[in-house]
Formats: sequence, C-alpha cells, structure tokens
Amino acid sequence: MSQGVKVGLLGWGTVGTGVTRIFQNSQDLLAKRSGTTITLGKIADLDITRDRGVKVDRSLLTTNAEAVIQDPEIQIVVELIGGIEPAKGFILKALKAGKHVVTANKALLAEHWDEIMSTARDSSADIYFEAAVGGGIPVVQALNDGLAPNHIQGIFGIINGTANYILSQMKKGQSFDEALAEAQAKGFAEADPALDVKGGDTMHKLVILAAMAFGRRVAPSDVHVEGIDQLTAQDILYAREELDKEIKLLGIAKQTKDKQVQVRVHPALIPGDHLMSAVHGVYNSLYVIGDAVGPTMFYGKGAGEMPTASAVVSDVIFIARNIHMGVAGNVPSVYYLPQAAADSLPVEPIAELVSQYYLRFTVKEEIGVIAKIAGILSEKGISIEAVIQKDAHKENVVPIMIVIHQAKEKDVTAALETIDKMPFTVQPTLKIRIEDID
Amino acid sequence: MSQGVKVGLLGWGTVGTGVTRIFQNSQDLLAKRSGTTITLGKIADLDITRDRGVKVDRSLLTTNAEAVIQDPEIQIVVELIGGIEPAKGFILKALKAGKHVVTANKALLAEHWDEIMSTARDSSADIYFEAAVGGGIPVVQALNDGLAPNHIQGIFGIINGTANYILSQMKKGQSFDEALAEAQAKGFAEADPALDVKGGDTMHKLVILAAMAFGRRVAPSDVHVEGIDQLTAQDILYAREELDKEIKLLGIAKQTKDKQVQVRVHPALIPGDHLMSAVHGVYNSLYVIGDAVGPTMFYGKGAGEMPTASAVVSDVIFIARNIHMGVAGNVPSVYYLPQAAADSLPVEPIAELVSQYYLRFTVKEEIGVIAKIAGILSEKGISIEAVIQKDAHKENVVPIMIVIHQAKEKDVTAALETIDKMPFTVQPTLKIRIEDID
Repeated sequence: MSQGVKVGLLGWGTVGTGVTRIFQNSQDLLAKRSGTTITLGKIADLDITRDRGVKVDRSLLTTNAEAVIQDPEIQIVVELIGGIEPAKGFILKALKAGKHVVTANKALLAEHWDEIMSTARDSSADIYFEAAVGGGIPVVQALNDGLAPNHIQGIFGIINGTANYILSQMKKGQSFDEALAEAQAKGFAEADPALDVKGGDTMHKLVILAAMAFGRRVAPSDVHVEGIDQLTAQDILYAREELDKEIKLLGIAKQTKDKQVQVRVHPALIPGDHLMSAVHGVYNSLYVIGDAVGPTMFYGKGAGEMPTASAVVSDVIFIARNIHMGVAGNVPSVYYLPQAAADSLPVEPIAELVSQYYLRFTVKEEIGVIAKIAGILSEKGISIEAVIQKDAHKENVVPIMIVIHQAKEKDVTAALETIDKMPFTVQPTLKIRIEDID
Repeated sequence: MSQGVKVGLLGWGTVGTGVTRIFQNSQDLLAKRSGTTITLGKIADLDITRDRGVKVDRSLLTTNAEAVIQDPEIQIVVELIGGIEPAKGFILKALKAGKHVVTANKALLAEHWDEIMSTARDSSADIYFEAAVGGGIPVVQALNDGLAPNHIQGIFGIINGTANYILSQMKKGQSFDEALAEAQAKGFAEADPALDVKGGDTMHKLVILAAMAFGRRVAPSDVHVEGIDQLTAQDILYAREELDKEIKLLGIAKQTKDKQVQVRVHPALIPGDHLMSAVHGVYNSLYVIGDAVGPTMFYGKGAGEMPTASAVVSDVIFIARNIHMGVAGNVPSVYYLPQAAADSLPVEPIAELVSQYYLRFTVKEEIGVIAKIAGILSEKGISIEAVIQKDAHKENVVPIMIVIHQAKEKDVTAALETIDKMPFTVQPTLKIRIEDID
C-alpha cells in the first residue's frame, strides 16, 4: 500500500541525536504505530564528523540543508536547529516544497506563527510541534485531540526546567546566583541564561499553548513577562514557612469572565499542597482546566535528548500515518484557525489584573514604618491580610512581608511607586502574585 | 466534502447526559476540531421520560437500541450502557453493520478484548475507548500517539476514584467502613462497592492499559488482584508517620528485566514525597515510564458526568475527522495487534515477584514474639529493615509492623503461613508491597 516514508533531519545536535537513537532502537514501534516503514533519508548539520555515539549510515550525512529540503524522496523535514534564522527560511522552503514539517522551535513558532501556519495551509503541508512545549509531555496533542471537546478555561504551566531547577535549589537555601551557576555547571542552563530566568522561553511556549487552547494567536509583545531573577532564597523560605506556599515560575493563559484572555509569565505563590508545588527540579508540568473535563495535569521531562526526541518522533509517526492513509496535509486542525475567528478574545492588560499579592518591602528599621505602608496601601483601597516581620539582616535594614487581599494590579503598582519613594525604603519593593491555580 | 456525521447513543444515564450536554454547549469545537458537522441522530434508553436537565429534540429518543444500530444515517455508535450484556451484543452488531464504536465499558473490553477488536478489524470499523480508563484523562491517546515512540517500561495507575477517596478519608482517621459509607452517601461508590474496593475495576482498566502499552492482551485471570478492604486507618497512619509513605491502590503493568510483564492490582506503600502520593480523593493519576521520554504523569477526574463525557466526545471527534477524510476504519492502531505478536511477553506469576514488604502482625503481648517472628522470616532468607511496635490496643493484643528488605513473594507467603499458625498470632498477618514507582 505504501512504499514507506523518508525523513530528513536539519540539525544533529542533542535532540537530533536522540531522534536517530529512537530510529535505531524502536523501528518496531515506528512501523506498528504508523502502519508504514519510516526511515531516515538525510541528516544535515554543519558538523558531521563528531561522534554522537549512535550508528548511522555515513552516506546520509550532509552539511547542506538544501540537500535535505530538495530531496524528492524526503516527505517529512524535522527542524532541530533552533532560533529564528536560518531555521525559519528552511521551514518555509520545506513547506512550500510540499514537505511536512516537525519542529521543536518554540521561539520561531511564537514569533512567526501566522506566517508559518498560513504557509503550511497554502501548501497543503502539515506542521507539528509537540516538542516545542513541555519536552516529552504530549500536551500539544492533548489540547488538540484528547481535550478537544473542552473550552479551555485556564492553563498554568511550569514549562521552563532551568528556572524550576533554580527555584528548587533556592528552596534548599542557595542564592539565585549559586543555583544558576550550578544549573550551568550541570548543563541545564545556557551560557546566556536570560531566556530561561527572565521568562522569555516560558513566554514563547505560552504563546503556542494559547493558540492551541483558544484558537487565538497572541503576539509575544502582548504577554506580560517577569523572570525569577529578583527572587531571594528568603522569599521562597517565607512563602513555605509562613504562608505554606511555593514560588514557581508560571506561564498562565486564562479566560476571564468578561471574554478576555490573560496571557502572562511571572513567578507566583501557589498553595503548598497543590500538585504543581510538588514539581521539582528540571521537570515540567501543565495544569489544564477544561469546561467539561475539569482540572487535568500533564507532567514529565521538559527538555533533554531523549524526552524531546520522543515528542519529535511522535509527530513523525503521526504524519507518516497520515501519508500512509493519503490524508497528510488535509487534517483539520484548530491551530490553522484564521485570526478573525478569535478576535473576540482580546488580551487583558496586566494593569487590569485582579489578584492577591505578596509584597516584600526592604526598609529602615524605624518606628511606624508598617503603619505608613499600610496607610499608603489603604489610600488605594488595598487591605492587608497578613504581615510578617523578621529581624534586621544588616544594620537597621529589615524585610517586611505583607500579603494583601485581592486588588487591582494598577492600584498595587501605584501604591508601590509611592512607597518606593519614601525615605524609609532602602530597595524597590518586590511583588509576587498569588495564584490559587483553579 | 462531507455531509456531516451522525452519532447514536446507547444509554442515556449520567455519562450519556454529559455527552448530550457537550453537544449542546460545544458545537463550535466539535466542528472546528473535526472539520465536519457532528450531530446526535438517536438516543436509546429504557427510560426516555425522566428529565436530564438538558435540551434534546424528543424525536431523537427511543427505547429501542436496535433502532440506533440499524439507522443507516448513524455512523458512530456510542455505547454507555456498561456491563457485559446487552452492551456486548449491541457493540458487535454495530461493528458488523460497519458503524464505528465509542465505548466507556472497561469490564467488557477487559473480558472480551480479542473478540471485540477482531470484529472491529474484520468490519473495517474503528473502536475507541478513551473513557474506559482514567475518565477524562487522555491517557489512552497518550499511549497510542503522544508516547508512541516509547517502549513502555511501566505504568502505575491510581485508577479507581472510589478506592482513592476511601484511602484519603482513612488517612484522616476514618475506618474503612466509615469511609465507604461516606463514599456511598456522596454517590462515589455503588451500592455494591465490591468492584471498586476489591480491585476488580482497577484490574479491568489495567488489562486495557497493558494492551495499549505492550500490545499484549492479558487475561483478567492472569492479573493478581487485591483490594483495600483489609487495610486499617492505622496502617495508613503508620505508613505516613513512621515510614513517610502513603498507601494507594495501584494498578501496575511493568516490564521485567527478563522480558516478562507484571500485571497486578494491590494496595502499595509509595514514597510520601512522590507526586502520586499527592493524588487525593476521587482523582485518578497514571504514572507512565517510557524508554525515551522517561517518567510522565497524567492526572484528572477519573469519573463523573462531564469528565467522562469529555473523553467520549474526544473519541467521537477523532472518528468524525477520519470519516470526513475518508480514512475511518483504516487507521493503524497498535491495539489491533494480533495476539501472536506479543506472546514473547508472558505474565510473571505473583509468587516470583521480588519486592520490599510492610508486614502487620497482630499478636499476643508476650516476651520473645518478635524474636520468633524474625527467626521464621530468617529461615526463609528474609531480613528485617525496621520494626515498629505500638502499645497494646486491647488486652494483651499488639500490632507489630515489620518492614523487610527485598524478598521473593513466595518466600514471604511461606513465612507468613508458618507465623499465622503460631499460638501467639491472633489475626492473619497483613502484607503490603512497597513500590518505589520508578
């Protein structure tokens, strides 16, 4: 019925090596689950001499990506180069040549969603990207298929393993800098860790999740993004000991009651007994709430050679099955939704967010400081739920932690601007949103 | 391209009502995600007069299941009757009539897997059953698609919400009987709770999971099954306080090093800081380990009207999409594997299991009892890791808890037989296996 499906790889780094390893170890599964034979046709990388510890026919290797894209026998192109260019050019060219594409490239999808999706649609080519979010966790497919009958009400994702590793280490008492250095030493963090710790990587993944969940393309610039680099080990400790909460870097995509969506990335205090609080180290987890199914959670390794390769190859199997059945390129897919269909869901500005907050003031140890802070908060209609005061860390400087009842973000911001200008304030106030995740 | 797909329901109870509710609330999603129009064609139930609180055209209702199966316009039959007959007869008839079938019927699938799958294959009809395991959690699909490139090494499932609810209540100090009565009062447990608390329901689901994971049909009679009805609140308390472990009713399907599979259902002590220990109340959770992806976890509501309906309708969407594309009935699917393909994976007899165990002896308070117990264990080569002795509960009777190092089940059973015959033994010894879940 079929002559088999040939796959070309662009990029033979960590994940690409994992993909070749799965082709080596699991031919039986690839055939059983796709109904056809799937083989590697070509592998392109700038470095084709380094030993990856995996056996491949050396005649498959090339330094020329075009040779993969233009090979008439190759029906599926797997892009594992990462970054915007040259990956973007290769993907568009492959789609236009009628190749189906599998990619793990979250930055590219987040930044150029419309162009890539419309090129795929116009070319009757499929594009799949399970590995772009949550590594090996099959959450893209869950949103597309397993939870298909659900209007998604909210997604709360721990989707950056590096940041979660750093927070887990800080909970053990390490400083942010120590934890980051350890993550780098262990290979979990890039030399330039900004995308991980400042929230950019989480934002990229969240933009993709929002598109899947709401059929709504959110521009990266519409996402409010904060990282974890302002947190101290003490924030994490106080959260746990005084409030029974954990601090996690969350990507949040949520429908509001008035038909808007919230799409935001920031550290958040979550209940200490919530399942998401038990997600430690480099693991990822997505808490997804549907109107029919209720709360669900998907957990697993968010990065690494074999978990990410698992997601990539699951997409390859899916496409190969469709090629085998003669329907590839025609599979209805909610993420091809034209933008117009979702224009009724505007992004709520972060200033309009209503939330509880944890505020950490760093002030001079003077009589009446708490009263003054409370007074300024009160002027903005903000009421206090709890105050935690600790001993002075160094001469005359104390941290004061205040948990406030629900308030509007812009009121909190305004109050903090005033407080941060007061003579008793030593350091800008840190605010962390409190999320119930429900 | 398509004239739309008509669906017939057999059984309009709780889940059937949820399905009609989704058809009412989420027509937009059904159309977007399937590419076609999906409508309800007929609904059969013995009682078509009771108000379900959901609007349906009364002309769709019938008391005659045959009218659904034989309706030439209906392409998908959803079976939500449950139990073996008449559900089995209806499903076989529908498949033979070329209808695709969606079912939530775990007992039927577990008991008659081969007959149902081969009838589907011979009729070029699809059968989907996401709702049969884990309610709304899309785990069947994850095994079939999202984790497709993985050789599944192990599945550990909390897949009976009633049993998990009872254990959660016992942790708060209720007796088994009190917790069961409360579960029944809240509608979580059937009037006859045997299938839930004695492990039969978990076994049915595990048989299905094993078929998905290993492509291997396991006969229900090959599964070792124990329930939770022998546990006391004290076992749960000691586990937590003395051993930092939780007791959960697990369904376990696991590959052994010597190419066998373990397929067993029993209460198990698991690490207190494991994610599966944080699964409380009626929630379900499946911890699935693949050779590429590593550990993953899928969590959500394992029962109830809307979660189960979510899973049912996700299957309906999938089939409707395939009908729309003209490939329904031809989708390669690992669970159609002929039995022969899996004969190399025999089920390991429970007597051969190697595990750590928690043993609770109930003995007369006499000098030298622990030494005698230790002696008998030692004769079987079993060594002790920890002993917990509590005060006498009632006159002269004490529980003694012993944790033993890894031992073979048959040696433990033999030692306990000897111990239970000793004059100091008041009550048969309880043994609970200790699982690391990794």
